[in-house]
Amino acid sequence: MTTNVTTVPAYAAPAANAPLERTTVPRRAVGEHDVLIDIKFSGICHSDIHQARDGWGEGIFPMVPGHEIAGIVAEVGPGVTKFQVGDRVGVGCFVDSCRTCEYCLQGLEQYCTGGMTGTYNALDKNGEPTYGGYARHIVVDENYTLRIPEGIALDEAAPLLCAGITLYSPLAHWQAGPGKKVAIVGLGGLGHMGVKIAHALGAEVTVLSQSLKKQEDGLKLGADHFYATSDPATFTELAGTFDLVISTVSAPLDFGAYLSLVKTDGALVNVGAPEEPVALNLFSLIGGRKTLAGSMIGGIAETQEMLDFCAAHGLGAEIEVIDADRINEAYERVLASDVRYRFVIDASTI
Amino acid sequence: MTTNVTTVPAYAAPAANAPLERTTVPRRAVGEHDVLIDIKFSGICHSDIHQARDGWGEGIFPMVPGHEIAGIVAEVGPGVTKFQVGDRVGVGCFVDSCRTCEYCLQGLEQYCTGGMTGTYNALDKNGEPTYGGYARHIVVDENYTLRIPEGIALDEAAPLLCAGITLYSPLAHWQAGPGKKVAIVGLGGLGHMGVKIAHALGAEVTVLSQSLKKQEDGLKLGADHFYATSDPATFTELAGTFDLVISTVSAPLDFGAYLSLVKTDGALVNVGAPEEPVALNLFSLIGGRKTLAGSMIGGIAETQEMLDFCAAHGLGAEIEVIDADRINEAYERVLASDVRYRFVIDASTI
Repeated sequence: MTTNVTTVPAYAAPAANAPLERTTVPRRAVGEHDVLIDIKFSGICHSDIHQARDGWGEGIFPMVPGHEIAGIVAEVGPGVTKFQVGDRVGVGCFVDSCRTCEYCLQGLEQYCTGGMTGTYNALDKNGEPTYGGYARHIVVDENYTLRIPEGIALDEAAPLLCAGITLYSPLAHWQAGPGKKVAIVGLGGLGHMGVKIAHALGAEVTVLSQSLKKQEDGLKLGADHFYATSDPATFTELAGTFDLVISTVSAPLDFGAYLSLVKTDGALVNVGAPEEPVALNLFSLIGGRKTLAGSMIGGIAETQEMLDFCAAHGLGAEIEVIDADRINEAYERVLASDVRYRFVIDASTI
Repeated sequence: MTTNVTTVPAYAAPAANAPLERTTVPRRAVGEHDVLIDIKFSGICHSDIHQARDGWGEGIFPMVPGHEIAGIVAEVGPGVTKFQVGDRVGVGCFVDSCRTCEYCLQGLEQYCTGGMTGTYNALDKNGEPTYGGYARHIVVDENYTLRIPEGIALDEAAPLLCAGITLYSPLAHWQAGPGKKVAIVGLGGLGHMGVKIAHALGAEVTVLSQSLKKQEDGLKLGADHFYATSDPATFTELAGTFDLVISTVSAPLDFGAYLSLVKTDGALVNVGAPEEPVALNLFSLIGGRKTLAGSMIGGIAETQEMLDFCAAHGLGAEIEVIDADRINEAYERVLASDVRYRFVIDASTI
């Protein structure tokens, strides 16, 4: 199936916990329904670090991370109908799915029962490892390729493919909008997109951050209110306030405390999550018919909807563009929360 | 306010953990909007035992439990418009609420922000303790009194006021009905009503019980399937099956295992709950946009809707009617799960 493999420059972790280094990886030949993408920018997501460092179980090495990809179509397969050479496109967290299960048929490919094929650190349908966006090119089925509207710069668009959709999907699903009070817990790569999108959806937005250090940023991004969670008064003052709280943090939260901020019939939705189990008193839910839920990225159609929404509202990620030889340094800075708010690799430097 | 107090025979726990004994308790005079109810039957709810034994914190003693009350209107206040002497009526878990908060105005009095007034073990607006249904009479505001339709016998109706609405409300809220697969965890006083109501709503109903001991009962009550949770194969076979799982048990469950039975976008709703916190891995929720929620009884309008629904479908509780001098014995049997499925006190024996 992969007869005409080509190789492309990439940055890869040769083994778990090893620094990333420049190398080459194979890309399949452009198939009937494939597009070859000239990658321009690739975002650095916290989960890249998790996986390159084996935090989520045994990875496939060498590993080329990167699932926030923005670029230009350089070639299309003969059966491609959705894209042309020169189109501005993006690729997110997955590049294939079974296409036949009830979730794929509903456009919820991220919950594919057969398991979607991750953009990297996964095996494709031929059993070949997938390699992600820290590379010069990638070949992707057109049905798993997104269109990036003209209204967003490619570098600011790249993080939308994971961070953007991860927040857009639950905000849309739990109906953030005018008259709704939404809190975003954590103002990082995910959280800052949550603030922008929730604000653009018309909700009243509150940031719940550990300290007030990022208050000025938060308000500029579109938050109406900003509270420090290190201050116990925050939890008294905001008790029963929110229709929707979205937690983007992966540190274990005191869920009882955060659920106390949720109104009756409201929801606390986790898009970040600690690796360890958390303790939960179920009376926190029963006493107000509250929901504790999770949400994971979004489907292809919803990701396109998000990109179109962001373009219509002039939303992109707040980014710091780096050359590829600074990836390892960027990883350390992400772990130290020293980024406002997303590193994006200039793929021309790979 | 309580100038014309009368006293009525009742069974009360004189102190925490003391056996219940026959006594008398005061009832307020019938006020402008009150009805005096000649209690005919009073169900024994597991939470009566919790409270009489101080399991839920410090109780008010002497305590007359009972919030599954069915009887006949014996007298009405001059301002009463909804009921007449001779009407068949019921009283559930609360007898008042603030009436002005957003939840009261939505008919969600059970989530009243001011705190609804419990039918017993609570203080009313005048600071007087409330006494429940293990008594010959009770005085209740007409707005917190339910009408029991002719189609249900009063003894079988009594448990609907707590057990019935506790299951009806989440089944209705999470839209159990034709085409939906619903599991009820635990086949006790709550669970058996869940099976009956979910079946009557048109859902495909599965009972998840510790063993197969009650299988024949479960199928008679309306279940389509019956599985033992002590058999690990149950969790393999039913993975990703249910739109809605309602847990009625108060033992700590392995929530990861039960969430694995829920479909993407499905919900695990707790109406029973362990007193201690449970451990939860949030990835159980994130991997399928799943909901872990709680639900507590129902509002007045919804309780009436439930009674009307049960009457229309010929549903009552499965009961064992006892004389009042067997209350303490019944408590022990409830704790030993030795009841199919609800004890109901014949109030004429009080």
